[in-house]
Amino acid sequence: MEKKEEKLKKSFIEKIARFCKEKGFVFPCCEIYGGFSGFYDYGPLGAELKKNIKDLWWEEFVRKRDDIVGIDACTINPFVLWKASGHVDSFTDPLVECRKCKKRFRADSLIEDSLGIAVDGITIEQVNEIIAKHSLRCPSCKGELTSARTFNLMFKTYVGAVEDQSSLAFLRPETAQLIFTNFKFVQKAARLKLPFGIAQIGRAYRNEISPRDFLFRMREFEQMEIEYFVHPDKLNQCPYLTKELLDFEMNIYSAEMQEKGEEHRKMSLREALEKGIISTAWHGYWLALVYKWFIELGVNPEKLRARQHLKEELSHYALETWDIEYRFPFGWKEIHGMANRTDYDLKQHMKFSGKDLSYFDEETGKKILPYVVAEPSQGVDRAFLVFLIDAYTEEEDRVVLKLHPKLAPYKVAVFPLVKRDKLDEKAKQIHELLKKHFTSFYDEKGSIGRRYARQDEIGTPFCITIDYQTLEDNTVTIRERDTKKQVRVKISELVEIISKLIEGEIKFEEITSELLEGNA
Amino acid sequence: MEKKEEKLKKSFIEKIARFCKEKGFVFPCCEIYGGFSGFYDYGPLGAELKKNIKDLWWEEFVRKRDDIVGIDACTINPFVLWKASGHVDSFTDPLVECRKCKKRFRADSLIEDSLGIAVDGITIEQVNEIIAKHSLRCPSCKGELTSARTFNLMFKTYVGAVEDQSSLAFLRPETAQLIFTNFKFVQKAARLKLPFGIAQIGRAYRNEISPRDFLFRMREFEQMEIEYFVHPDKLNQCPYLTKELLDFEMNIYSAEMQEKGEEHRKMSLREALEKGIISTAWHGYWLALVYKWFIELGVNPEKLRARQHLKEELSHYALETWDIEYRFPFGWKEIHGMANRTDYDLKQHMKFSGKDLSYFDEETGKKILPYVVAEPSQGVDRAFLVFLIDAYTEEEDRVVLKLHPKLAPYKVAVFPLVKRDKLDEKAKQIHELLKKHFTSFYDEKGSIGRRYARQDEIGTPFCITIDYQTLEDNTVTIRERDTKKQVRVKISELVEIISKLIEGEIKFEEITSELLEGNA
Repeated sequence: MEKKEEKLKKSFIEKIARFCKEKGFVFPCCEIYGGFSGFYDYGPLGAELKKNIKDLWWEEFVRKRDDIVGIDACTINPFVLWKASGHVDSFTDPLVECRKCKKRFRADSLIEDSLGIAVDGITIEQVNEIIAKHSLRCPSCKGELTSARTFNLMFKTYVGAVEDQSSLAFLRPETAQLIFTNFKFVQKAARLKLPFGIAQIGRAYRNEISPRDFLFRMREFEQMEIEYFVHPDKLNQCPYLTKELLDFEMNIYSAEMQEKGEEHRKMSLREALEKGIISTAWHGYWLALVYKWFIELGVNPEKLRARQHLKEELSHYALETWDIEYRFPFGWKEIHGMANRTDYDLKQHMKFSGKDLSYFDEETGKKILPYVVAEPSQGVDRAFLVFLIDAYTEEEDRVVLKLHPKLAPYKVAVFPLVKRDKLDEKAKQIHELLKKHFTSFYDEKGSIGRRYARQDEIGTPFCITIDYQTLEDNTVTIRERDTKKQVRVKISELVEIISKLIEGEIKFEEITSELLEGNA
Repeated sequence: MEKKEEKLKKSFIEKIARFCKEKGFVFPCCEIYGGFSGFYDYGPLGAELKKNIKDLWWEEFVRKRDDIVGIDACTINPFVLWKASGHVDSFTDPLVECRKCKKRFRADSLIEDSLGIAVDGITIEQVNEIIAKHSLRCPSCKGELTSARTFNLMFKTYVGAVEDQSSLAFLRPETAQLIFTNFKFVQKAARLKLPFGIAQIGRAYRNEISPRDFLFRMREFEQMEIEYFVHPDKLNQCPYLTKELLDFEMNIYSAEMQEKGEEHRKMSLREALEKGIISTAWHGYWLALVYKWFIELGVNPEKLRARQHLKEELSHYALETWDIEYRFPFGWKEIHGMANRTDYDLKQHMKFSGKDLSYFDEETGKKILPYVVAEPSQGVDRAFLVFLIDAYTEEEDRVVLKLHPKLAPYKVAVFPLVKRDKLDEKAKQIHELLKKHFTSFYDEKGSIGRRYARQDEIGTPFCITIDYQTLEDNTVTIRERDTKKQVRVKISELVEIISKLIEGEIKFEEITSELLEGNA
């Protein structure tokens, strides 16, 4: 990456981190003890936004679907599981150390940052060749670097009162494997028939050598993943490919386009499937569905693209992978991954456990090993960062967080115009009424303008003001965050109106005209 | 504990664990690899029930309250934090090893199980005296035991590429400390004024020497905690003590009653406060509130009691502690703890961090250190177990899980009477309609009786059956799980009726009469 781009990124990330700390979205973990690199704590607003993201995802991809069920498995697992999955052997980064100042660096990042060479999927030998060829030295003290060695990214611990190989355990680096180890139990208990998915939201841990970029590369994070299992002979038989979905347009950036030095190109899912750019119908279906999920929750479609992994980027278990990337102010970055994991994982666990994990296909009367043709997988924290950054808007006179109402920590804020003449009393009543239905914030401190500004900054989509007219006719004003427009409505209609606004069933402008008619 | 009681407990726990595995509530973690002691994975139904418990708690104690905000902090923390909190030095259990078979045991549990002596808060020296006096030997091979030593229950790991004291970290054994380290940031960002609380739901980890009793004592579990901060001079000024709450009756089991060998006694919160049985108004308020929470979610009030810790039971940070206990088929067990932590934790973190964590009291113009006069704290998994066991009912002809509708994984199930004559088509439409509002399960396999039975077992409160009459007049039957009663309602009213039934706004009997009138 170029110096200028790196600088731009740093200053932007710093601004967002500062904003998050000030408003109570995110705090550096253990800051009173000087911080803890790669760890962040979510504050009051952050905890709500993060919970909303997870709840909306779970609602959409688990509860609303008959073909997907969820699980919630452990984050500490025994050695054997991660040996079977391939992570003990392959989940590593190349590490170099400065002989002088003893600082340690992730060698591939060092090469990328210092030389601007993309080195995804490079071997340790190649890393050492490049370091030698370019006489790369410690970026901190210019000291000489050691040869690179592999460093496993899994945090380890010991379970029980003895510390030895038999008690060695790892903190899971991904949630996926627990879906595979529970595959048969889940399938049987929930009486699932192919095709079906198993979903999970939960923590994962990676001992990154150089955690960086705020929530982007952390050591402790959260994932939302689905393993979607299909019959190996039916990779292209997806019953959910509606016309609407086939017509859905994405910015597609195939491996071929990247190799040819082309830009990404907007095309429909239909075109991408027909031209074989996306290999299987199921993979295309899931890619479009998740891409759409981001858009429906307010993310600017022009800032999204689906990028195929180059061959050398593929993980040890993947046949074909598509990332969804977001164009941050500092460049395109992965926010969602979707690998075709084939039957790699179930096979590995069958081999290491000696247990039969196959599925009995009633149609053919044969045992088969299902394929994970698509694994929609994303970091909750990156989703958080995308929603936040995409919503963050600096206007002439204010900072406003244009979060989708469904994501907003507070759906409404309630203000008495002044804190006297029973306006505050009335306002509190309305706040209590609204709290039965939505998260509501009551504020009576400072000027109305100042109170609006505070809510704009934290993304509250609707502010309700109680004024003298309220006492006369039981009406209040609703003010919309993004447009600053206001409309007066009856208290008796407030819950329904706010509810419809959040769900997107009516637009703010529509209330105006409706009410004007009603008042006329 | 007596042998008979121990046996009863074991067989009951085994039955419940088997039930949970079969139905997809809970699976032993990594069972395909022979299991992983102290770790359990939640299956499809378990993940939903657990999520419902957490969501209802968050809704009640965070979102609906103006005085409490939530956070979501990291589970791995540096050594210094747990040194400051006292856990490095005090969070230990006494460990003995068999010299012959090398098995390790928790010495206090061993003494309790083998000798029936209660040894809470006992010192290592006392443990060794008892073992010597009674010539206690290995329960497994009768070999000689070593002297007891302290064993720290925190899982440790190393963060970063070097493994030494500087990178030593622990998996948090409780969520509470992260509330204290973030105290100032949260208070400032959310502009909180005393009294206020900070809540958190999240994982915690304890390397138990002898994990046991299914979800009851696990090595990885989840907590729901609130640290409630009050002005140290206002420990008895609780503005939320309504008459309703003061009249609320609990089974109270004070330290004095225990010492005198008395039984617990039913009394109102008012009486407990007036007699000084519960020392502070705030402690009483929180105890009643949480006690009520369990009852409102369907737990049998006769099986709950509030038990005060004996002096020797108190944790290193606690001045006064009240547990809420549930009477399991194998005895009373703690399901909720509530310590008065005073200003112990903030003081410790001030001392170790050198940072000012005090609060500026605008009223007096002085800096003060707030008191945590009550810390409502509970394990999600124990709450799960209580709700499940309390709901688990064996009737003559069926097993039925009488979960409160708000807790039930599926709120409704939809069946076509038969899978033909467009009944299945119609049923699917109704299922789709209901899914927009509730978790709904569609089932067309097997007899109606078999389908009802399947839903009874997993706690689905309402089953909707579509029959030939449905095609004629757009009515369906709703069948209530607990009473097996049925009533016919219009499809157009279905969503509203189910919604009101779940919220407890109407009773099932009321639909009948209402509809009969409507039909008359």
